Amino acid sequence: SSDGNIRKKEHKKLDKCHRAQRGAGEDVEHEGNSGPRGNRNTRVKLYILYNHWALKVLLYFFILVSLCLAIFEEPAVWPLPVWATMLVEVLCLLIFTIRLVHYAKVIPRDKFWKDPKNICIIVILMLTLVDMIIYGAMKSANYYGVRWSRVLRPLLLVNVTEGRQLRRAFRSIRNALPQIFYVFLLFMFSILIFSLMALKLLGKRGLKNIDGSPYFTSYLEIIFELYVLVTTANSPDIMMPAYNASFIFAAFFILYILINTYIFMSVFLAVVYNNYKKYLKEEIRQLVRAKRHKMVRAFAVLQEPREEGGEPVVTRATWNQVVQLVQPNLSNAHRELLWSVSDDKNQGAIGKVAFVQLADLLNIEVITLKSRPHPLQWLCPTLYQSAPSRLLCRMVQHRAFVIVYDLIILVNAVFIGLDEENPMIANSEWVFLALYILEILLKLYVFEPRDFFSKHSFWNWFDTIVVIAALIATIINSAMKTSKDFSSQQILDIVFILRVLRLVRVVDSIKRFRTIINTLIRIGPAILTFGQLILVVYYIFAMVGMELFKGKVTFYGQSSTDPAKAYCGNPLLNGTDFAKLNYCKNNFNNVVSSFILLVELTVVNQCSGFVTVTHISARIFFVLFHIIVVIVILNIFVAFVLEAFFVEYSVDKNTGWDNLVNAMETIDNDLGTSQSAKPNLPSLMFKIASKRYRTVDALLQRIFESDLDPEDFAENDDPEAQSSGNFANPIFGST
Amino acid sequence: SSDGNIRKKEHKKLDKCHRAQRGAGEDVEHEGNSGPRGNRNTRVKLYILYNHWALKVLLYFFILVSLCLAIFEEPAVWPLPVWATMLVEVLCLLIFTIRLVHYAKVIPRDKFWKDPKNICIIVILMLTLVDMIIYGAMKSANYYGVRWSRVLRPLLLVNVTEGRQLRRAFRSIRNALPQIFYVFLLFMFSILIFSLMALKLLGKRGLKNIDGSPYFTSYLEIIFELYVLVTTANSPDIMMPAYNASFIFAAFFILYILINTYIFMSVFLAVVYNNYKKYLKEEIRQLVRAKRHKMVRAFAVLQEPREEGGEPVVTRATWNQVVQLVQPNLSNAHRELLWSVSDDKNQGAIGKVAFVQLADLLNIEVITLKSRPHPLQWLCPTLYQSAPSRLLCRMVQHRAFVIVYDLIILVNAVFIGLDEENPMIANSEWVFLALYILEILLKLYVFEPRDFFSKHSFWNWFDTIVVIAALIATIINSAMKTSKDFSSQQILDIVFILRVLRLVRVVDSIKRFRTIINTLIRIGPAILTFGQLILVVYYIFAMVGMELFKGKVTFYGQSSTDPAKAYCGNPLLNGTDFAKLNYCKNNFNNVVSSFILLVELTVVNQCSGFVTVTHISARIFFVLFHIIVVIVILNIFVAFVLEAFFVEYSVDKNTGWDNLVNAMETIDNDLGTSQSAKPNLPSLMFKIASKRYRTVDALLQRIFESDLDPEDFAENDDPEAQSSGNFANPIFGST
Repeated sequence: SSDGNIRKKEHKKLDKCHRAQRGAGEDVEHEGNSGPRGNRNTRVKLYILYNHWALKVLLYFFILVSLCLAIFEEPAVWPLPVWATMLVEVLCLLIFTIRLVHYAKVIPRDKFWKDPKNICIIVILMLTLVDMIIYGAMKSANYYGVRWSRVLRPLLLVNVTEGRQLRRAFRSIRNALPQIFYVFLLFMFSILIFSLMALKLLGKRGLKNIDGSPYFTSYLEIIFELYVLVTTANSPDIMMPAYNASFIFAAFFILYILINTYIFMSVFLAVVYNNYKKYLKEEIRQLVRAKRHKMVRAFAVLQEPREEGGEPVVTRATWNQVVQLVQPNLSNAHRELLWSVSDDKNQGAIGKVAFVQLADLLNIEVITLKSRPHPLQWLCPTLYQSAPSRLLCRMVQHRAFVIVYDLIILVNAVFIGLDEENPMIANSEWVFLALYILEILLKLYVFEPRDFFSKHSFWNWFDTIVVIAALIATIINSAMKTSKDFSSQQILDIVFILRVLRLVRVVDSIKRFRTIINTLIRIGPAILTFGQLILVVYYIFAMVGMELFKGKVTFYGQSSTDPAKAYCGNPLLNGTDFAKLNYCKNNFNNVVSSFILLVELTVVNQCSGFVTVTHISARIFFVLFHIIVVIVILNIFVAFVLEAFFVEYSVDKNTGWDNLVNAMETIDNDLGTSQSAKPNLPSLMFKIASKRYRTVDALLQRIFESDLDPEDFAENDDPEAQSSGNFANPIFGST
Repeated sequence: SSDGNIRKKEHKKLDKCHRAQRGAGEDVEHEGNSGPRGNRNTRVKLYILYNHWALKVLLYFFILVSLCLAIFEEPAVWPLPVWATMLVEVLCLLIFTIRLVHYAKVIPRDKFWKDPKNICIIVILMLTLVDMIIYGAMKSANYYGVRWSRVLRPLLLVNVTEGRQLRRAFRSIRNALPQIFYVFLLFMFSILIFSLMALKLLGKRGLKNIDGSPYFTSYLEIIFELYVLVTTANSPDIMMPAYNASFIFAAFFILYILINTYIFMSVFLAVVYNNYKKYLKEEIRQLVRAKRHKMVRAFAVLQEPREEGGEPVVTRATWNQVVQLVQPNLSNAHRELLWSVSDDKNQGAIGKVAFVQLADLLNIEVITLKSRPHPLQWLCPTLYQSAPSRLLCRMVQHRAFVIVYDLIILVNAVFIGLDEENPMIANSEWVFLALYILEILLKLYVFEPRDFFSKHSFWNWFDTIVVIAALIATIINSAMKTSKDFSSQQILDIVFILRVLRLVRVVDSIKRFRTIINTLIRIGPAILTFGQLILVVYYIFAMVGMELFKGKVTFYGQSSTDPAKAYCGNPLLNGTDFAKLNYCKNNFNNVVSSFILLVELTVVNQCSGFVTVTHISARIFFVLFHIIVVIVILNIFVAFVLEAFFVEYSVDKNTGWDNLVNAMETIDNDLGTSQSAKPNLPSLMFKIASKRYRTVDALLQRIFESDLDPEDFAENDDPEAQSSGNFANPIFGST
C-alpha cells in the first residue's frame, strides 16, 4: 500500500509536470478541476483525449467544412438545395458543441465561464442557430432572407482552443489600434486639408476629366480620389487634367504624394510595427514567465533534498521519468544528450535553474544523425568497397558533381524555353528526366537512404518528389498521346509546372541564396498565422460583399455573343472603364470570385465599377477593406518579415537561447568523441537544427530573447496574470 | 615678449580646439599643413575664410545655377542661345575651380590628392570643359552634338566639401549594394521561373489581350509584364485574360503577387534597412570616436596639472576662452550653464571626461527663456496691472480660449467648403480674418512679444505669417476686384491656400497629433538629405531621358485643334492607352516635365508609351530607374522614418545623450531657484530643446547612441581611420 501510495504520488507529480510542459506554449487552457478527488483519473483521461491530435484534426476539418459551405450556398459556385447545406451546417454546429462541452468537462466551471473565447463560441453557435431557423422559416414562406450569421463562421477559427496564435495576433492588433487610430486621424486630416485645397484651387477652373465630366468639383469626390491616390491606383490619371492646365498644379500632387503616400505610409508601418512588437513581446514575456513558473512548481513537486543541506535537486531517475512521460517518442540518446546539457557538471542531479531550462531544451529541434553503414555495404560489401565503387562515391561527393548538374539544369531551362512542338526538344525531355533520375539514384548509392530522406533534407525531398512526379506525368502524357492521339491539357500543364519547378533546385547550390531562402522557410509557420488572419478578414468581407453586390456584374464566357457582354450585363456599366477593360469577372457573384477580387483590391484598390452599379456609399466598403487589410494587416506582415530578417542578421548577439544551443553543440561533440572511443555503441551523432523552431512560440521567444531575463523565474508571477488565473494552475500547485 | 609668447601659445591652443570643435561633425576636411611655420597665420585665416558661411552660400548658389542651366539648354523650357548658357557654365566652372584651389591651399597637398572627392571634382570639371569644347565645335560646324557631361553636374553636389551627409548616404548605399544585389538576383530568378511557367501554361492557349494581341507568348514580354506587376502598375489588367479563361490561373497570379510583391519587397526593405543602418552606425561610431579623440588632444594642449598630483584639469578661465572662441555668439548665461553641467562638483576645473563632453553639450540646443516683464507693464504699469487687464490675461491663458479658437477654425473650415460666390460667405472671410488677428493681438498683449516670436515657437510663427499674408492677399484681391472689376487668379489662389493653411493650426491643439508632427518636423533635416539624394538621381535620369526621348511625345495645349493632338503628335501612339488617357504631357521634352514624369514613375511605373515611340529596349531605362529609386532609395527613406519613430518610441532607455540632457535640465532648475533668490539678476530660465538637434550628425548620434560607449575615447583611434588620415590632425597634434 505504501508502495502504491508512492507510485500514486509519483504519478501525480509526473502528471503535473506533463501539464506544465504542455502548458508551456498555451495561455488559458488546461486547468485542473476542483471537484472530488475520485474524478481525477477520469478527468486526466478526458484531458488527454481532448488534446488527442485526431480530435483536433476533426475539429479543423469541420471548421473547414463550415467555411466551405459558402461555395454551395446562394450565391453559389455549385448550388446545392438549402436543406442540404443546412443539414451539413447543423452537423458542424453539433460537432463544435460537443467539443465545447468536452472542454467544459476538462477545465473548472468558473474558469470556463470567465474565458471570453468560450463565450464567443457559445454566442456564435446560438446566433448561427437562430439565423438558420429564421432563414429556414423565411425560405419556406418564400420571403427573402439573408444568412447574416455567415460572417461569424471564420470567428470560430479564432476562438477554438487551438487558435492560440491567431488570437494572439488579433489581441496584438487590438492593442495597437489606439496608436494606429491617432495616426489615421492625422492622415485623414491631411487628406481633408489637401482635398479642400484641391477644391478651391482646381474646382472653379472648369477642367474636365478624360470622360468629359467636371474635374474636382465635389468635395466628397475629391476626398475619395485623393484617398485612392495614396494607394497609387489612380496615378497619374487623377493629376493629368490639372497638370495639362498648368505645370504648377503638378507640385500640389507631388507634395500630396510625398506626404501621404510616402511619409504617412511609413509612419503607419512604424507605428504598427512598434506597437505590434511591443504587445507581442509583452505576451511572450508573460508566456515565458508562466512557463518558468510552472516548471518551478513542477520542480517543487519533484525535488529531493540534497545530502548536505544544499539546494534541493531533481535526480536523474525522476527526470528521466518526467521526460519519458512528456515526450514518449524521444529517443534514449536524445534524452541522454538533454541530460548532459542540464547536468553539465555531471553530478547525477540537477538544480532548479537547469530543470527550468528543460522546457526550452525540448523546443530545440535535434536531428539524430546515425552514421549508419549503407545498406549495400551490408548486402554486398565486396562490391560496394571495390575501387570503382569508391571512385563513384568520391565523384558524386565532389563539388564538380553539383556544378555539372547545375549546368544541366541551366541547359534544361533553355530547352524548356524553346518551342516544345519541335520533336527534338520534346525528346530531349526524356534525356533530362533520365539525367535527374540518375542523379537521385547515384546519391542514393552514395548516401544512406534514411539519411538522404531525413525529415530536414528539404531539397532532397523536393528533388525526388518533383522528378518522380514529372516522370509519372510525362509517361501518362505520352501514353495518352500515343494511344488516343489526345493529350489532356491538365496533365500537360502539370508536366510543364514540374519541369519548371525542377529549375528551382539551382538556388540551393548558391550559399548566399540558401541563407535567404532558409530564413523565408523558417518564418513559414508564422506566415501561416497571417494566412489565417487574412482568411478571417477576407471571409467576412466576402460574405458582406456578396450580399451587397451579388449579381450586379455578370461575366459572359469567352465565346458568348450576348450583346450584354460589352457592359457586363449591367446597362449602368455601359461605356465605363470597368467594362472596357473587361473586368466583368471581377465580381462578388460567388465566394471564389469574391476572394480573388479581394486579393486584387489588396494590391490595387479599384472599385469604380461597383460604385457605378450600386451607390456612391459602396465606397465605404472598399475604403474600410483597404484600411483593415493594407494599412493594418499587411503592415504587420511586413513588420514580421523585417523582424525575422533582423534577428537573422544579428547572429552575433549571444543570448540565452544561443547559449543553450551552443551548450548542446558542445555536448554533442563530446558525445561524438566519447562514443567513437566505444565502438560497441552505434556511432551516433546529433545535429542541432538550431535555426529551426518547433513552434511559432519558440520562434517568437527567440525574437524577443534579448529582452527576457533568463534567470527571471520569480515564484510570484505577474499579479494580473496571477489574478486573472490565465497562467496559474491552482489545484496541482496545492498538492 | 614672454607675455606675447604665452598669448601666442594660448592662441594656438585655442585655435586647435576650435578646429577640434568644428571638425566634430566633419570627416575628411580641415587638415593643417606641414609647410613652414611662418605660413601658419595666413593659413589659419584662409581656413577661416574657407569656412565662412557666405562662401558656402555662394558655392551652393552656383551649383544651383549650373543645375538650373538645364532649363535653358536644348530641350529647353525657355530657350537661350548656346553661347549664353555656355558662358554661365564657364563662370560656374571657374567658381568651382577657385573654391577647389582655396581648399587645396588649406589642407596639406598629400591629403588633398588622396581624397577621392577632390579627384572627383577635378575629373568632373575637366570632363565638362572637354565636353563644352567638343559641343561648341560641333555646333559651330552644324553637327549634332550631345552635352553628355550634364549628367555629371549633380555629382558636384555630392563631392563639394559641404556635401558630407550626401556622401555618407551614398557610401552607405554603396556598402549595402552587395547584400541588396544577392536578394535582387534571387528576386529576378523568381521572376524568371514564374515567367517560364506563365509562358508554358498560358502561351499556348490562344488567349488575347484586351487590344487583341496574343497574350503571354513572348518570354521577354512576360518577364517585363511580371516585373511591372511587382510595382502593381498593371494589376489586375495583366491577369484578366488568364482569369477570364479559368479560375485556376488566378491562383498563379496570387502566388506570384504574394511571393514577389509582398515577401520579396519586404525582404528588400529588411536588407536595405539592415545594411544601411549597419554602415551608417559604423560611420557615426568612427565620427564620434574621432571627435572624442580630437577633444582629448585639445585637452592635452589646454590641461594644467592639479595641485596634489591628481589628474590634469582644464581651468574655468581656459575653458571660457575656448568656448568663446568656438561659439562667439553664445550668451554668457548659456556658457555658465554649460560650465555648471561640466563641473558638476563645483571644483572650478574639469577633468578629461567632462571636457570631452563639451562637443556634445554644444550640440544640445538650449533656448534661453528670459522671463522678461511685458513691455506694456513697463510703459503703462497701472493699466496693465488693472483688474480688467488681469482678467483678460487669465482668459487668454485659459484652456477655453484654445477650445473657442479651435471651434472657430472648424466653423471656418465649413465656410471655406461652402460656395464663396455667395456674398454672405465672401464677407464672412473678413470676420474670420478679424478673429484671427484679434487672437494674435490678444496673445501679444498677454505674452512677451520676444518670447512669443522666439526661434522655436513654430506654430506662433506659422499662425502669424499665414494670417498676415492672408490679410494682405485678401486686401489686394478686393482692391483689384473693386477698382477694375478684375480678379487675378494667382492672388485668389494664394488667398485660398492661405485660408486652408490656417486650418492646419488645429493639429497643434491635440497632444497626440503634436507628438507625431514633432517627430516628423525633427526628421526634416534628414529628409532634406534624401531630397538631395533623389535630386541627384532624378537629374541624371532626366538628362539621359531627355537625350533618349525628347520630342517623341508632344503635348498640344488644351485649346489646340490639331488632329495630331489625339495621338500626342506621334503617329506610333495612335490608338494606344497612352494617347487615350491623355498622358501627352508626361514627356521628356524639357527638364521640368522630365522631373514630374520621374515622380510619376516613382509612384507607378508606366512606360508603355515611351516603349511604343522608341524601341522595346527603352524598358531598360525604366526598370533601372525603378530598381534604383524604388527598391533602393525609397526603402532607405522608409528605413530612416522607421528608425526615427522607433527612437522616439523608445524614450525609456536612458543612455548617454539623455543623461546629458537630464543633467542640463537639473542644473537649469537649480539656476532658476538660485537666481530667484538674487533679485538683482535678470530672472533667467533655460529650456532645453532636448528633442531637437542642431545637426543631422547629432540626430544620427542619438539614433545610434545605445551602441556607443560614452566612456570610449581611447587615444589610439581606429587603426584604419588613423592611417588613412581621415580624422587625425597631425600638425596641431604635434605642437
